Amino acid sequence: MTQFSFELLATDGAARRGRVNTAHGTLDTPAFMPVGTAGTVKAMLPASVAATGAQIVLGNTYHLMLRPGAERVARLGGLHQFMNWPGPILTDSGGFQVMSLAKLRKMDADGVTFQSHHDGSKHRLTPESSMEIQRLLDADITMAFDECTPFPATHEQAEESMRLSMRWARRSKEAFVQRPGYGLFGIVQGGVYPDLRAESAQALQEIGFEGYAVGGLAVGEGQEAMFATLDVTTPLLPADKPRYLMGVGRPSDIIGAVGRGIDMFDCVMPTRSGRTAQAFTKRGTVNLRNARHQDDPRPLEEGCPCPACRDHSRAYLHHLIRSEEILGPMLLTWHNIQAYQTLMAGLRGAIAEGRFAQFAAEAQALEEMGDIAPL
Amino acid sequence: MTQFSFELLATDGAARRGRVNTAHGTLDTPAFMPVGTAGTVKAMLPASVAATGAQIVLGNTYHLMLRPGAERVARLGGLHQFMNWPGPILTDSGGFQVMSLAKLRKMDADGVTFQSHHDGSKHRLTPESSMEIQRLLDADITMAFDECTPFPATHEQAEESMRLSMRWARRSKEAFVQRPGYGLFGIVQGGVYPDLRAESAQALQEIGFEGYAVGGLAVGEGQEAMFATLDVTTPLLPADKPRYLMGVGRPSDIIGAVGRGIDMFDCVMPTRSGRTAQAFTKRGTVNLRNARHQDDPRPLEEGCPCPACRDHSRAYLHHLIRSEEILGPMLLTWHNIQAYQTLMAGLRGAIAEGRFAQFAAEAQALEEMGDIAPL
Repeated sequence: MTQFSFELLATDGAARRGRVNTAHGTLDTPAFMPVGTAGTVKAMLPASVAATGAQIVLGNTYHLMLRPGAERVARLGGLHQFMNWPGPILTDSGGFQVMSLAKLRKMDADGVTFQSHHDGSKHRLTPESSMEIQRLLDADITMAFDECTPFPATHEQAEESMRLSMRWARRSKEAFVQRPGYGLFGIVQGGVYPDLRAESAQALQEIGFEGYAVGGLAVGEGQEAMFATLDVTTPLLPADKPRYLMGVGRPSDIIGAVGRGIDMFDCVMPTRSGRTAQAFTKRGTVNLRNARHQDDPRPLEEGCPCPACRDHSRAYLHHLIRSEEILGPMLLTWHNIQAYQTLMAGLRGAIAEGRFAQFAAEAQALEEMGDIAPL
Repeated sequence: MTQFSFELLATDGAARRGRVNTAHGTLDTPAFMPVGTAGTVKAMLPASVAATGAQIVLGNTYHLMLRPGAERVARLGGLHQFMNWPGPILTDSGGFQVMSLAKLRKMDADGVTFQSHHDGSKHRLTPESSMEIQRLLDADITMAFDECTPFPATHEQAEESMRLSMRWARRSKEAFVQRPGYGLFGIVQGGVYPDLRAESAQALQEIGFEGYAVGGLAVGEGQEAMFATLDVTTPLLPADKPRYLMGVGRPSDIIGAVGRGIDMFDCVMPTRSGRTAQAFTKRGTVNLRNARHQDDPRPLEEGCPCPACRDHSRAYLHHLIRSEEILGPMLLTWHNIQAYQTLMAGLRGAIAEGRFAQFAAEAQALEEMGDIAPL
């Protein structure tokens, strides 16, 4: 049976090229995980997600526990079988989404009670119940239950929140059922305060996890503060475990974080943008709703292997968006996931060949050139 | 260069197994044409449409002339290139949709003036402009511009309407630019009145077309009246030209019409139903929104090669519908188009082997058995 493990294959400065082995297969890092909130990467067939090169997807505990319910998913064979994604799956702990419910939730030292946004029904999440739900979903990577510290937060608020998360991290570890090929990740909190990040990183390692996430970033602090926090955090994390920056981000965020030693990413940006006519290209984002595309016979991005670029013109994509045709979001989502996977493959190749800095500089220069000029 | 032609390969009673050759390829008949209203079969990639076995799609002149505009489509290489459908395309004349605009249109002996449902802008369709638009779209099969006689209509109303359509059919023929591999179809009108259908069929043959459509049915008259009208109409149409029943229909309508000598069909039913959780199966329609599917691990239809049935459970499809996930309409549309193409392939095989009556009886018996019992 596969053991959950991380192989560090190459480094280039702080950037790492690695491999995570799980019960349902391997993911090459740096990896971007498309978000499959409710058991589907929105507007994509699972086979299409895999065709982009994605090896792992993310599921959301909050959404799945409410609908269709974790017990139901378990009865139907687990999330892999339910959504027909045979590869690795990571689930979040539900904490982040429950906290964002604002008036619909009530926190105590033991956990969070909240009302469903569907029907107002009452539910409760604790470290223990989150572990149980993620086990029912059959996640290869389970995330510890924590509180995502809001931004801005004073040092005192961030400290109190982080220490609560560390207590919950220990309870998560105790409740997590070890199985071969399955891993539990702890989450470093502490806001933008280096001393709190250090304390959190230390506390988590004393508990011991199969991987370490950096949480509480990409919540409004800006790229500079995010990078500064990574600069003081990733050096404190063990080199032989995968590192996951939660909820990040734009391509430039990812490149900068990879350069600071991060291995895994997730973000709704490529999928959500695909449903709002925004396409990611090597030369920045393109808004396909813009009338300047209406007569443009060129592909969205030359050389991209996705069907939007391979089979269609910008003019056609624009037409689909303007006509509110479902095929528009379908094609743009596919393109965006492909663009992210192409970026990750480029990063992996560059690190393996010792040219990460050059790759990052070229990517930045290309993006600054901006979108291809109109005809 | 391919000439537009029809090969009659086999008959079984009135049912016909044939082949239509066009500039962009061949379609085997009896054929069902998925509807690609605005240059896309809703919620489907063109390659997925082709994967179901569909060989031809339909485009709507009314929608495409307004957005993105026929001249624009022509500049972008025609509708085949625009929507990336390299196979045959049939376009309607725009007449049917313009007539249904009710208060937004004004008819005269020469044509119809109407306002766009998008922005209220004024447009005009005549036999001549409809031919020009369909030529710009590069339709392999162009439909004559006609008035779809409303139902119910008195004999006098149906007669007047039919005679107008016959005058417009002659003008359509005169305006149609003959090109190798391209064909123009006339449309028989006359409501439910046998004498008018006969007069219309005769008038169209005097003009001469590459194919003959039966119009003005599936507008509320019911299956019995539709079949009765076909019984008196198809025998009057030339055996060496394809016959197209416009806007039809449910599987039982198609089977009955094939048994009365019809070769081609189109209908929004499989695609529209796919977006409203209705799935067509050999045992009738299934509403995936129904809670009885929520724990059902079985495929929607055993043996169906579409991804909805091959890769997913009824429980998952139900979950997608309830969660309003785009993948729900995507999968159910795919299934429904597949179900229709599987039906057509079954009909073609049955006619070729002289067992059409048996096939039709078995299909009816299966449908009457109803959906598979709940678990």
